[in-house]
Amino acid sequence: MTKKIPEKMKAVVLPGYNGNMIKAIKSLEIKLLPVPKPDKGQVLIKVDATTCNPSDLSFIQGSYGIKKELHVVPGFEGTGIVVQTGNDETSKNLLDKRVSFNAHVKLNGAWAEYVVTNTKQCIPVHPDIPVEQAACMLINPYTAYALFELIKERKSKAFVMNAAMGQLAGMMRSLANETGIEVINIVRKKAQIEILKNKGSKHILCSADDNFLNQFTELAKQLEAKTFIDAVSGELSGKMLELMPSNSQLILYGALTGENLSHIGAKDLIFFGKNVTGFNLIQWFETTPKEKIREVSYKLQEKIRKGKIKTEIYKKVKLKEVSGSLIRYIINMSAGKVIIEP
Amino acid sequence: MTKKIPEKMKAVVLPGYNGNMIKAIKSLEIKLLPVPKPDKGQVLIKVDATTCNPSDLSFIQGSYGIKKELHVVPGFEGTGIVVQTGNDETSKNLLDKRVSFNAHVKLNGAWAEYVVTNTKQCIPVHPDIPVEQAACMLINPYTAYALFELIKERKSKAFVMNAAMGQLAGMMRSLANETGIEVINIVRKKAQIEILKNKGSKHILCSADDNFLNQFTELAKQLEAKTFIDAVSGELSGKMLELMPSNSQLILYGALTGENLSHIGAKDLIFFGKNVTGFNLIQWFETTPKEKIREVSYKLQEKIRKGKIKTEIYKKVKLKEVSGSLIRYIINMSAGKVIIEP
Repeated sequence: MTKKIPEKMKAVVLPGYNGNMIKAIKSLEIKLLPVPKPDKGQVLIKVDATTCNPSDLSFIQGSYGIKKELHVVPGFEGTGIVVQTGNDETSKNLLDKRVSFNAHVKLNGAWAEYVVTNTKQCIPVHPDIPVEQAACMLINPYTAYALFELIKERKSKAFVMNAAMGQLAGMMRSLANETGIEVINIVRKKAQIEILKNKGSKHILCSADDNFLNQFTELAKQLEAKTFIDAVSGELSGKMLELMPSNSQLILYGALTGENLSHIGAKDLIFFGKNVTGFNLIQWFETTPKEKIREVSYKLQEKIRKGKIKTEIYKKVKLKEVSGSLIRYIINMSAGKVIIEP
Repeated sequence: MTKKIPEKMKAVVLPGYNGNMIKAIKSLEIKLLPVPKPDKGQVLIKVDATTCNPSDLSFIQGSYGIKKELHVVPGFEGTGIVVQTGNDETSKNLLDKRVSFNAHVKLNGAWAEYVVTNTKQCIPVHPDIPVEQAACMLINPYTAYALFELIKERKSKAFVMNAAMGQLAGMMRSLANETGIEVINIVRKKAQIEILKNKGSKHILCSADDNFLNQFTELAKQLEAKTFIDAVSGELSGKMLELMPSNSQLILYGALTGENLSHIGAKDLIFFGKNVTGFNLIQWFETTPKEKIREVSYKLQEKIRKGKIKTEIYKKVKLKEVSGSLIRYIINMSAGKVIIEP
């Protein structure tokens, strides 16, 4: 039985893009908005829980790759129950189902009681998976899994991963552990080497080390690391690709520096079979065949149920607490995700 | 009947890499070298004719992507008769055949009476094709054809091509003309616009124009140009890719600026499905299935026989005239290729 859908909903609203992150967070307001209606190929979801990723923080500052019309509800992912659907079979099949979802690239996002998104951006969630894991199941776990599939397709014996302290990196290490594929972890601070070592990582380099590029060249050659999973962008990434073996590929999925990719060696592209491409999960859901997504979902959700892939949770908050809790979150991101339950 | 192979051969020898092009050309010497022996997977070719491409000029300066051990015989392509082969079936099948060839990436090149190269880098030549066309049949015509195949595979309605005054660009325009695929030609000097217009080109932009990037954005959007065939590299190429529509690809096959590729938009890679790759003909011959190469050869050589694809020839010279004639060649490259007949 589908519950009655109200006309209004509570939502966190961003009134304007503000380059300063603290000011952007403080500008967030709770408002009453009309509950949106799903078009064909879309569903309306009653949000059980949502979260805040680095991409959300970048978005509210206006520095993310996706910009939406203002005022706007932020929130790129979440979980909830499909309570209304567009007039097409695929969408109707999701009615009353519990899903994790990516927000629509143009419409209001997940920091609200209700949200409309594309049906293709919804994944049914196994009943054993707790709500807080489901709330952040796509942007990190699915991205990690999809990127790791690319590494396997490329038959890379090893891959390079920067931003290695992040949760996504941890998930990719878990996936790699099961296969024997080696990981070259790149961290920014010397102290982080010890932390990853204690978690069982074998290969960790610090990009602040004077001798970093030499160490990197040596290790990439020794392990035959031919895929570079890059969340950082900028000149250093280009230089690192240049130092990797022939036929290496750089897959950019984030740009923490906010910089363009530069120093891409012309000779490497022309003579050494290297190339540069990008990845984003929303496009992956739009373009990957249904059967493949179903297969990935089955395998990945099994790992999540068994705790092999796990998002660390910092705390749960209500919509009206978002602003304050996000400021605490950015001070210590490695403590885990904030889960927002409307 | 295979003729007796002498022990010594005349060859043009480069004694050292010299960053100055004129000095590099002047340093070339005629020497008597031992005729090399083909290994397995290789053939010995008695050279009928060879040529000088921009890549050769870059090579003798030491600024090309391929560097060989010195002293070395330059010359990346040519034509001749296979007079001796390695002990394998594929190579033996080429004995006594007339071929066009790419030089070996490590061994002495084509500016000699004899040359050894990999069997995979040899293409039998149709008897109707004159020696001077066969001498420069691979690096321009085959590259043009292979690049154009990529454009067709990508289903691009239009493509962007810089270095549009070059012979390869002219060949790609011929191929495009037959298909209705539009070409955006990029030239460096205003006066060149008129020259290409008179040859029948519709879309020509000059990168020196103050308003170039705006014009380019508009035209790429209007024609839905999603492939960028780049012989130049550098920052401008990165900026141009950024201004092209979603899902555009940059294919780098040359680096006339000598610069790395920079300004590759992180957002374009992550959110707009763009990517960057390279092309080189030697690798194409190594990795493309035999049947595909045979099919391409059949179609392309038919076009060459009919004069639809034609290399402009400046003059024919002997080995001992190479040095002097190359200096005249670089002064006016658009006059056509120098053909060297040993």
